[in-house]
Amino acid sequence: MTDAPLALPADHPYGPHHLPYGAIGVGDEVHLAVRIGDHALDLATAAARTPWAAELAEPTLNAFLELGPRAWAGLRSWLQERLGDEAGRAELGQHLHALDGLTLHLPFRVADYVDFYASEQHASNVGSIFRPDGDALTPNWKHLPIGYHGRSSTVVVSGTDIVRPTGQRKTPADPAPVFGPSIKLDIEAELGFVVGGSTPVGSRVSVDEAADHLFGIALFNDWSARDIQAWEYVPLGPFLGKSFASSIAAWITPMAALESARVDLPAQDPEPLPYLQGSDGSLFGLDLTMEVRLNGTVISRPPYATMYWSPTQMLAHMTVNGAALTSGDLFASGTTSGDDVAQRGSLLELTWNGSEPLTLEDGSTRTFLEDGDTVTITATAPGPDGTTLALGEVSGTIRPAG
Amino acid sequence: MTDAPLALPADHPYGPHHLPYGAIGVGDEVHLAVRIGDHALDLATAAARTPWAAELAEPTLNAFLELGPRAWAGLRSWLQERLGDEAGRAELGQHLHALDGLTLHLPFRVADYVDFYASEQHASNVGSIFRPDGDALTPNWKHLPIGYHGRSSTVVVSGTDIVRPTGQRKTPADPAPVFGPSIKLDIEAELGFVVGGSTPVGSRVSVDEAADHLFGIALFNDWSARDIQAWEYVPLGPFLGKSFASSIAAWITPMAALESARVDLPAQDPEPLPYLQGSDGSLFGLDLTMEVRLNGTVISRPPYATMYWSPTQMLAHMTVNGAALTSGDLFASGTTSGDDVAQRGSLLELTWNGSEPLTLEDGSTRTFLEDGDTVTITATAPGPDGTTLALGEVSGTIRPAG
Repeated sequence: MTDAPLALPADHPYGPHHLPYGAIGVGDEVHLAVRIGDHALDLATAAARTPWAAELAEPTLNAFLELGPRAWAGLRSWLQERLGDEAGRAELGQHLHALDGLTLHLPFRVADYVDFYASEQHASNVGSIFRPDGDALTPNWKHLPIGYHGRSSTVVVSGTDIVRPTGQRKTPADPAPVFGPSIKLDIEAELGFVVGGSTPVGSRVSVDEAADHLFGIALFNDWSARDIQAWEYVPLGPFLGKSFASSIAAWITPMAALESARVDLPAQDPEPLPYLQGSDGSLFGLDLTMEVRLNGTVISRPPYATMYWSPTQMLAHMTVNGAALTSGDLFASGTTSGDDVAQRGSLLELTWNGSEPLTLEDGSTRTFLEDGDTVTITATAPGPDGTTLALGEVSGTIRPAG
Repeated sequence: MTDAPLALPADHPYGPHHLPYGAIGVGDEVHLAVRIGDHALDLATAAARTPWAAELAEPTLNAFLELGPRAWAGLRSWLQERLGDEAGRAELGQHLHALDGLTLHLPFRVADYVDFYASEQHASNVGSIFRPDGDALTPNWKHLPIGYHGRSSTVVVSGTDIVRPTGQRKTPADPAPVFGPSIKLDIEAELGFVVGGSTPVGSRVSVDEAADHLFGIALFNDWSARDIQAWEYVPLGPFLGKSFASSIAAWITPMAALESARVDLPAQDPEPLPYLQGSDGSLFGLDLTMEVRLNGTVISRPPYATMYWSPTQMLAHMTVNGAALTSGDLFASGTTSGDDVAQRGSLLELTWNGSEPLTLEDGSTRTFLEDGDTVTITATAPGPDGTTLALGEVSGTIRPAG
């Protein structure tokens, strides 16, 4: 075995500066892995003599997540050292699987899942569409990162087909609710944050401490049935309009790979309460440029750098009441929408609730998703020394209602 | 060892017609158990030669829940047969632990947790308090069981102290949000339903099939910070006002013990959509009389029989969009409130948002909970042949904010 597959050019989007985590099928087993170039490095075997061998022999990252940031940094250094010289690459090269043909699994068991609503542009657009007679933003929006809990068991890995959900809808024109497959099936282009390191009930995690619990990020598509959601969501929030499925990328990019992607947040005005403030550098955005493709046509390029709240603020807010963290918790940003029409992260916004259809490259038009449609979200981010990272894509195809 | 502890009078509230499930500390281990009289029968040892021995050797019920209703009925019959004769009782008697002094653990790992809003009286009261200018019930309320997802990791077993949550609140009189410990800490007297038997994403469970997934019930207190909730909940629903803690009884009463407690639902008008209807007997209420005690004073007696929606309707609704079930899923009914003031299941309703204080037996008054307050919810239900069941209590004491 030569070191060839691991001797990558410095600017490779899955080079040694990236090292995202996943889970691969190996025979009948599921092994944790790191993506390097076009290969997956099998951690169950490659890291069998490291201090983290027991945790890395598990089929999910949860035990490794629980070890905390010193272990995360330790494994990353251990890998980068070996990738940096020929002997190390030859050693690791014995544990590679070509990505082509590999089955990718959800690399962590989702504990609690929370979805935030952190884009001012998205919240304003949705407010204007759903509550045209009121203010676009609710009075609380700039004081706290609004969020709600979602269904953990329906978070599925990229590539899983999405069955169109069925349920109740009622427009003002309908005399009574109508039952059937959703006719307003939508996407939400989001970023998911994977949490490590559990905390007990009754404690809280500050903005400054939050970074120690942020393991990594993954592109996330929070499929949404707008017709079901509109009828059900007052007064207790979204439920069945969201809980049928959420897709997450198969590869989790560690926060450690994103140092060069950190950017300042947009100005926060009014100033948030002290528990949402932190010391220098603890509040940050991420310079990720997403691309949303519908059947191959790019329909949007949402810029994550426009998000109002820092992930550290979201995590601090989520625990300020004493809520526990569990390794494997997942929180998502909410839909990412920029200032321009072509930067909106949902069809609801892109078509203004169906009133302005999109035209795809094949000449067909869309308001919401049709059966057979495939939505794929990709993103790149700046890496160190002028390099670029490519986040793992999140993709799903709509199957007809069962 | 005689059979004395297990030779119980027929009307004992924890007799052989009841057999609730729990988890007990045995040395450094946690064992599954069934409560019989004032003893816990250790299932890890007592059932070691049954077909369910592997699942019952686990520290939580989740694996046993996954086996489904035939296994649940099988174990129940196996226990009742032995409890019915002296030799059987002597055999089981070798595996008893006196309850006095035992540590009780959460008997299942909570997968997804959903809270419903199934009491018309409660929803009307809350609507009148929070939205005085609108209709008390939202237009969707009688068409679907409204619900939302909550935080699984903060469901705690009865007896766990509850730390007063901290967070943001803002009344219309406040120029800006205020940060601090909640000053409107409340209870919600609910019934929790424990789900067994997983289903795949993209499938649904009908009202008729729902009973096969209903393992048992437990009293549930959904602690609520009304001030935090009021400021945060528009537009995406309750979040930190609820997610700091929810308490569940240590003993789960199997549905099989509740055949005599089933009652007809209140009339449902308008008729629900077909997916919320079922064949004869598939829709039911439960004739449980709850008692809510605050520092020993009974402050309410909520009648569960007044709830509008059947648990089978809640479960069918929860999955109609294709949401998966996982063994260990928990859904709660929402606050139970009857027609009378003294039947309201929350302090919000009992004191009409603090405007009508309660007087306790010691002469003190309460609007919302004070530090050191203990709230205990108990309930009884009719058992077979004129007997009575006592549900495991759910209790918690408020500790000051940290």
